[in-house]
Amino acid sequence: MVTTPRIAIDAMGGDEGVRVMVAGVALARRRHEGLRFTLFGDEAQIREALKNHPNLSQAAEIVHTDQVVAPTDKPSQAIRQSRGSSMGLAIQAVKDGKVGAAVSAGNTGALMAMAKLALRTLPGIDRPALTAFLPTLGENDVVMLDLGANTECDARNLVQFAIMGAAYARVVLDVERPRVRLLNIGTEELKGTDEIRDAAAVLRSANGLPFQFDGFIEGDKIGSGEADVIVSEGFAGNIALKTAEGTARFVTDVLRRAFTSSIRSKAGFLLSKPALHLLKVHLDPNNHNGAVFLGLNGMVVKSHGSADEKGIANAVHVAARLVEEDLTARIAEDVARVGPMMSEEMIAK
Amino acid sequence: MVTTPRIAIDAMGGDEGVRVMVAGVALARRRHEGLRFTLFGDEAQIREALKNHPNLSQAAEIVHTDQVVAPTDKPSQAIRQSRGSSMGLAIQAVKDGKVGAAVSAGNTGALMAMAKLALRTLPGIDRPALTAFLPTLGENDVVMLDLGANTECDARNLVQFAIMGAAYARVVLDVERPRVRLLNIGTEELKGTDEIRDAAAVLRSANGLPFQFDGFIEGDKIGSGEADVIVSEGFAGNIALKTAEGTARFVTDVLRRAFTSSIRSKAGFLLSKPALHLLKVHLDPNNHNGAVFLGLNGMVVKSHGSADEKGIANAVHVAARLVEEDLTARIAEDVARVGPMMSEEMIAK
Repeated sequence: MVTTPRIAIDAMGGDEGVRVMVAGVALARRRHEGLRFTLFGDEAQIREALKNHPNLSQAAEIVHTDQVVAPTDKPSQAIRQSRGSSMGLAIQAVKDGKVGAAVSAGNTGALMAMAKLALRTLPGIDRPALTAFLPTLGENDVVMLDLGANTECDARNLVQFAIMGAAYARVVLDVERPRVRLLNIGTEELKGTDEIRDAAAVLRSANGLPFQFDGFIEGDKIGSGEADVIVSEGFAGNIALKTAEGTARFVTDVLRRAFTSSIRSKAGFLLSKPALHLLKVHLDPNNHNGAVFLGLNGMVVKSHGSADEKGIANAVHVAARLVEEDLTARIAEDVARVGPMMSEEMIAK
Repeated sequence: MVTTPRIAIDAMGGDEGVRVMVAGVALARRRHEGLRFTLFGDEAQIREALKNHPNLSQAAEIVHTDQVVAPTDKPSQAIRQSRGSSMGLAIQAVKDGKVGAAVSAGNTGALMAMAKLALRTLPGIDRPALTAFLPTLGENDVVMLDLGANTECDARNLVQFAIMGAAYARVVLDVERPRVRLLNIGTEELKGTDEIRDAAAVLRSANGLPFQFDGFIEGDKIGSGEADVIVSEGFAGNIALKTAEGTARFVTDVLRRAFTSSIRSKAGFLLSKPALHLLKVHLDPNNHNGAVFLGLNGMVVKSHGSADEKGIANAVHVAARLVEEDLTARIAEDVARVGPMMSEEMIAK
């Protein structure tokens, strides 16, 4: 492992440009003073952006490249043509052990494909999963996976996701024994697809899990705080994530219309503004930015393309925590301990 | 078809009891004066509830039964044991042509299983789909299907759902040429499962569709008003519906906390109250109550179990519109016209 924690940054990936990427990294560094960074991308642009952040300049090295993965590049195209891009080089640095993690706000499909090819899955893990936080009414956020890396998953994948998600929750949410549930269209045992029912059967009967399996959860309870980890195949997981984002925006749009519909309601808005700030904090996707590809031999964190400075800082903070806590090793340990038991159970089926 | 439109009501199905069911039916009748009703359930309780609604009494007949499908009954159990229940008799009345539609607020799984067995699917339709409205920022609600009747669907099912959903939108939203999309995890052609890509290919290449196919839509755009009909397999559709409900509740909970967090914000709330009423109207599930099983030889409408009087009235209103517009016949026509073309295309693949 890396001795001084260092993180690779794809400086060219975000929609908002190099300036915002660099500002976000500088902001994150204030929370992690020991961290060092390697910034991949156009050297002149990066140097220009660093001028405003002397505290980051001294902790950052730059690796120049003028190749960039475009948002419209297909994953297969990126794999063939973009090894020398800012994204490709950042992933390669993880593979070479030069950094503990890479952060990119670029093309998700390309990032996923390149990371999978370069880093390979951990022993005992068949597929990586895209993992993120969602806000809840409870004390903690909830960890949700897979959010779109795999459109179809078998029971074995889902069980592996549960193990990985729980390890992630222990590290990042600081929950000792995470409560894990499978996303389903009902809570009765007979609900859902064969894959989900089989995964539930394995998780229910397994002994010595480093988490608590609480059965199924429906879409309307994702934000209830009843679970620390919600496991899903990637199609439904992505639909749930996006639907939650869309609905939150829908409600705030209706609210905005309501508050500007009359002078009276405008006055009400002004009075309530400090309180409404709470809603903004809760719903701002920047506060939950930083999705991780779990299950690879190395950490890759995906930021929203449209993240602002604070959002980028959050994604870098997630990467820093994963490096500091050596999550890859922890997942590998959990899989080594729980995995063989799982396999027997599932072969026995 | 039925000459005087008549609707069967499972008076025993709702969580709120017979009184609320009957009050909801009475409320709906004010919008549909020509409608007649057959109420199935405990005669004494129904008579008692009808005392408050003389306008409904004269338009309603009662068929007594003391059998009720319990919320916990499994669908297979209901099929074997509950033909004589209020739910079973209401569905049988549709089958016998005594009523144009049945409305129940009872056990969804049992209702679906019994309706499918008694009514069978329309010629050219392989599976029925659970269909409902969701609110949007646009002018109209959006029709979404399938919301959980089928956990796995092939391309053929999805194409049939598109035809049925469009027919439904034409009747209930009064949109001449509905804009139809498939729910997916991205909008590019290569995204999603084989089933979704195949269904899209068929819909893109078909001529003379009675709707406009606009490709894919992601979860965050469900409420955007960009589509009149959103088609999905039942698993992801149910997850999306429930996630939207849950997120809306989440946001309003955070809002409630915000507005009661200080005297100042309470005052702001009071000032904004008339405007905030808009939000309530938009999000109240009672205003969108009434999911339909499309694709059967007869109409069955499912109300939320927890619907209030207004919610029940909305479900009955939906049933009334479907009967008045003879939706079953319209879907059958569309399928007969578009279906054979679809089949050839799909066999040719």
